[in-house]
Amino acid sequence: MEQMENFISNDRFAKHLGIEVFDAKEGRAKGHMRIEKHHLNSAGTLHGGAIFALADAVFSAASNSHGTLAMAIDVSISYFKAVKEGTIYAEAEEISVNPKLGTYLITIKDDSGNTIALFKGTVYRKSTPLEEILK
Amino acid sequence: MEQMENFISNDRFAKHLGIEVFDAKEGRAKGHMRIEKHHLNSAGTLHGGAIFALADAVFSAASNSHGTLAMAIDVSISYFKAVKEGTIYAEAEEISVNPKLGTYLITIKDDSGNTIALFKGTVYRKSTPLEEILK
Amino acid sequence: MEQMENFISNDRFAKHLGIEVFDAKEGRAKGHMRIEKHHLNSAGTLHGGAIFALADAVFSAASNSHGTLAMAIDVSISYFKAVKEGTIYAEAEEISVNPKLGTYLITIKDDSGNTIALFKGTVYRKSTPLEEILK
Amino acid sequence: MEQMENFISNDRFAKHLGIEVFDAKEGRAKGHMRIEKHHLNSAGTLHGGAIFALADAVFSAASNSHGTLAMAIDVSISYFKAVKEGTIYAEAEEISVNPKLGTYLITIKDDSGNTIALFKGTVYRKSTPLEEILK
Repeated sequence: MEQMENFISNDRFAKHLGIEVFDAKEGRAKGHMRIEKHHLNSAGTLHGGAIFALADAVFSAASNSHGTLAMAIDVSISYFKAVKEGTIYAEAEEISVNPKLGTYLITIKDDSGNTIALFKGTVYRKSTPLEEILK
Repeated sequence: MEQMENFISNDRFAKHLGIEVFDAKEGRAKGHMRIEKHHLNSAGTLHGGAIFALADAVFSAASNSHGTLAMAIDVSISYFKAVKEGTIYAEAEEISVNPKLGTYLITIKDDSGNTIALFKGTVYRKSTPLEEILK
Repeated sequence: MEQMENFISNDRFAKHLGIEVFDAKEGRAKGHMRIEKHHLNSAGTLHGGAIFALADAVFSAASNSHGTLAMAIDVSISYFKAVKEGTIYAEAEEISVNPKLGTYLITIKDDSGNTIALFKGTVYRKSTPLEEILK
Repeated sequence: MEQMENFISNDRFAKHLGIEVFDAKEGRAKGHMRIEKHHLNSAGTLHGGAIFALADAVFSAASNSHGTLAMAIDVSISYFKAVKEGTIYAEAEEISVNPKLGTYLITIKDDSGNTIALFKGTVYRKSTPLEEILK
């Protein structure tokens, strides 16, 4: 899985936001993000875009874990609870996959284990091997 | 509209990503983001999470422009085209609003005017005045 | 749960489509629909609208099972597999609920247990008791 | 456009619900549905599933209007307003299309011209010509 680690460490946007992603294999992945001041919105709570970014990074890792390039085409997210501090956690589950499309469900939780958001995303799967991307 | 400017300038997540939002009034808003290295994904193109972040910032400005706090509850985004450089632009339109709920459509375009993504978001509207949030 | 049974049997659209819903309580519900000729689309497979209708009926039963009126505000559905015959099954799970909003995940399967679609729906919860609706 | 008319008239689910679709060409289509008793939900208003069905029929016509088979993969719908009687109207606009994917926005209005729902749908485009489906 060295290739997958390279792929993940290449995600500069995730890095810029302090997102860590791991255990990406066989359509699954996990991640977390420690809430910092620069993740907050105008109301002083964790920005919906920051929650999305964590879920999206885990979605990308899970959907690319089969070794060929997957590109997000449609995503839907529902938000349940405002969070102000601590760390948030995301975990991806593969709901369906075929040679062209894959759909993933990512659950996002806070420190206390409360589900704060639910993310459903679909990718278009190209035949391009990840190693070609990583050159 | 000084209050709205304060509300927008309070969005630290948007600031951290180099997002600029303006013209927030009567359910509408605009914004743009210049693509930087830290906005790229593992495949070297603009991260879906960064596109979402711009749309989300414009969505927040538009839905809060009536002067009371609006919180995102459901968002759906479709991605059409990979972008590598330049600036991307987002514009929000209010599709429906009542005292409790509002729905907005945000169109995201690249430098050449191509639509690269479409974002549909619904907020729950609280009765809390924005000025109370900004204290 | 007699009230819930009355509420469900009042759903004329579900009846018109041969949808049966049961076990609606505490945020959960189940249902099924036997595929008939009038459920098919132009390509001769089960219509996406018919799959949605089954999921929606189960979503309605689950979200109204707390005894007060719930109205759908945002729904997202992903389709995975074409089906031609047999019976399809749907089951709703409550992901989050508070006094104003609730979000549900409905999984739809075919006869062989394959997941053919995934439905995520959010309701706005009114304070109106169901018995008032059923008068 | 005789082929498109055959394709539309083959949609038995739409027919079962009294949906009429027309003007399907170049990524666009229109339709309407007169509200009947069997379109109502448990609360006595037009069922969300019936609104979806009309939008979905128009979505199918628009996305198949290029002459090759298009299959729905992801749809999101937002509901704004309860309706009880009259006719509802839907119109599809093509937001993006490439050889593999297409995304459409369908606006649904009531008799008075109020927007009652907004539907965003993405299809996967196969290379199968429609005439092969219609054999």
